[in-house]
Amino acid sequence: MDESFVALNFTEGKLILLDQRVLPTQVTYVTCATYEEVEFAIRDMIVRGAPAIGAVAAYGVYLALQQCPEQAAFYQACKFLSLARPTAINLGWAIDRMLGVYETVKAQGRPKTLERLLMEAHTIREEDIQTNKTISRIGNQVVPYKATILTHCNTGALATAGWGTALGVIKQAFYDKKDIFVYADETRPRFQGARLTAWELMESKIPSKLIPDSAAATLIRDGKIDLVILGGDRVAANGDVANKLGTFALSVICKAYGVPFYSVVPVSTIDFTIRDGSEIPIEEREAEEVTHVQGVQVAPSGMQVYNPAFDVTPHQNLTGIITERGIIYPPFKQNIERLRRGETL
Amino acid sequence: MDESFVALNFTEGKLILLDQRVLPTQVTYVTCATYEEVEFAIRDMIVRGAPAIGAVAAYGVYLALQQCPEQAAFYQACKFLSLARPTAINLGWAIDRMLGVYETVKAQGRPKTLERLLMEAHTIREEDIQTNKTISRIGNQVVPYKATILTHCNTGALATAGWGTALGVIKQAFYDKKDIFVYADETRPRFQGARLTAWELMESKIPSKLIPDSAAATLIRDGKIDLVILGGDRVAANGDVANKLGTFALSVICKAYGVPFYSVVPVSTIDFTIRDGSEIPIEEREAEEVTHVQGVQVAPSGMQVYNPAFDVTPHQNLTGIITERGIIYPPFKQNIERLRRGETL
Repeated sequence: MDESFVALNFTEGKLILLDQRVLPTQVTYVTCATYEEVEFAIRDMIVRGAPAIGAVAAYGVYLALQQCPEQAAFYQACKFLSLARPTAINLGWAIDRMLGVYETVKAQGRPKTLERLLMEAHTIREEDIQTNKTISRIGNQVVPYKATILTHCNTGALATAGWGTALGVIKQAFYDKKDIFVYADETRPRFQGARLTAWELMESKIPSKLIPDSAAATLIRDGKIDLVILGGDRVAANGDVANKLGTFALSVICKAYGVPFYSVVPVSTIDFTIRDGSEIPIEEREAEEVTHVQGVQVAPSGMQVYNPAFDVTPHQNLTGIITERGIIYPPFKQNIERLRRGETL
Repeated sequence: MDESFVALNFTEGKLILLDQRVLPTQVTYVTCATYEEVEFAIRDMIVRGAPAIGAVAAYGVYLALQQCPEQAAFYQACKFLSLARPTAINLGWAIDRMLGVYETVKAQGRPKTLERLLMEAHTIREEDIQTNKTISRIGNQVVPYKATILTHCNTGALATAGWGTALGVIKQAFYDKKDIFVYADETRPRFQGARLTAWELMESKIPSKLIPDSAAATLIRDGKIDLVILGGDRVAANGDVANKLGTFALSVICKAYGVPFYSVVPVSTIDFTIRDGSEIPIEEREAEEVTHVQGVQVAPSGMQVYNPAFDVTPHQNLTGIITERGIIYPPFKQNIERLRRGETL
């Protein structure tokens, strides 16, 4: 049940990342020895997926302190890191957590502080792996013994510190010998479904098919999908979920045809400070992601492009939000508030 | 108001087609001197778009008679042509019309029959251009003086004998000085929106942006789209419309958020013989269209794929169907029957 690959690792003072820009045709690794390289890795999507971004950013904070003995410069480096991508809350969450440790231990001197920050980054990564396993076991409860599941984007071992969230649930169901079949949306424009999820599904030998994003609607209407399970990049206090572009459309189709629709996220992806999805910043990425595919031009030169990386699914379209603390069902606002207060769901 | 390019032409006994597989990065032409080459051009999508397929098939029938003096072989050649692609009704419609002429004139001898078939193919092409212009004027009635329009796939001069259907309406509105802005879906997997519609929009200097298919839903929800105008490959007698994959999902989103949704087709695209969309054969195309983009691999080798080229939009999701004989509004079944009987709409 372990992965055949390691998406992120920290060894000999350097962060080693599996380069997700060129998978599956090339399996290469990128080394980040500075926080600037970590920022670039996040921004250019060498690594992506909300939980993975969090873990990587934590190591970025450690590298930043190594490079910046002066506190002002260190804080500036952390600010720089935090702006690499705007939508996934895990980036800011991990940096804030690292800064909390920094503030607590900095009086003990630089060597001790560095040591504690590295330990905390390791802890964040380890916790994410454990959180994923817990989420997967909890999420598996909603998967019937025979089920055709639709998923979108990549939420597997590549999107996390290891194992996965939504794809973790799917893997758990498969390893528990449930009779599942997975349709994976290719996920334009970056093809995370085609390049990454398809690759993970094949590595795990889970029966599956890849589809163009637009093919999902007819499958849903025709009763060929039992449930949709996908990730989340930021969840608002009312349960609205920002996730990869395409999620919102799927949610409307599922609602129209009565198909269960779940977002799977660690609690660290919930932003308790914002009331609803309208407050989530949606990253707009460059035109070239749409006009070119791995360098091949598919649109006329000079064509204008609108390329939002995420969209917001209103909580009304969700069946539930699966977390390591349990499944959040409606009323979402009240139940997320209970989660925030530390109550059981 | 004329096009800067000619998508299909017949000269010196040969059909010349602008190769739509490699636009916009390459502007090259393919010559078809045999009906087998015409069949391949349709099947491999050198030419595509329901009306264009009809016009091209008509020339294919003429070439078939040139190659096959024996009637049995000629009929077999026409059958072969008719199977090039299953969904667009215009293919069978044009071949049937050509065969009707053949049956009427064959007694007059081979040279005369060939002459009449070539004339009929020219007529089908000319009629399509005129039909497009009429459709565009009629369709323009539903476009407000200031409007943001969403379109899908390609329905312009490239998809027809010239000018276009849905994109024809958009061009008409623009040339009539309406203040329009167009969002063009890229239209996976073949990128007809990115490669062809974007190219035609730029050639016509119509203000526009290209979007990933999945970006349309949020634009619709947020009130940024005033109406959706797109084509159709086969319309059933009850108004259900088979069109490029992705149309159905758009129709559900538009219905949920109250945005007008029009299909634009010549009457030749209506299949009066089938009751509803469930009877429309949906072409499933090869995996490589999804796993590769212009030869570049975007999914792991061996990944299974489901790649339907079209989907069916139920008539309940349509605001109207725009034809050269007027706009068909609900109740669609009754109004399509009136159209069939030759009554005015």
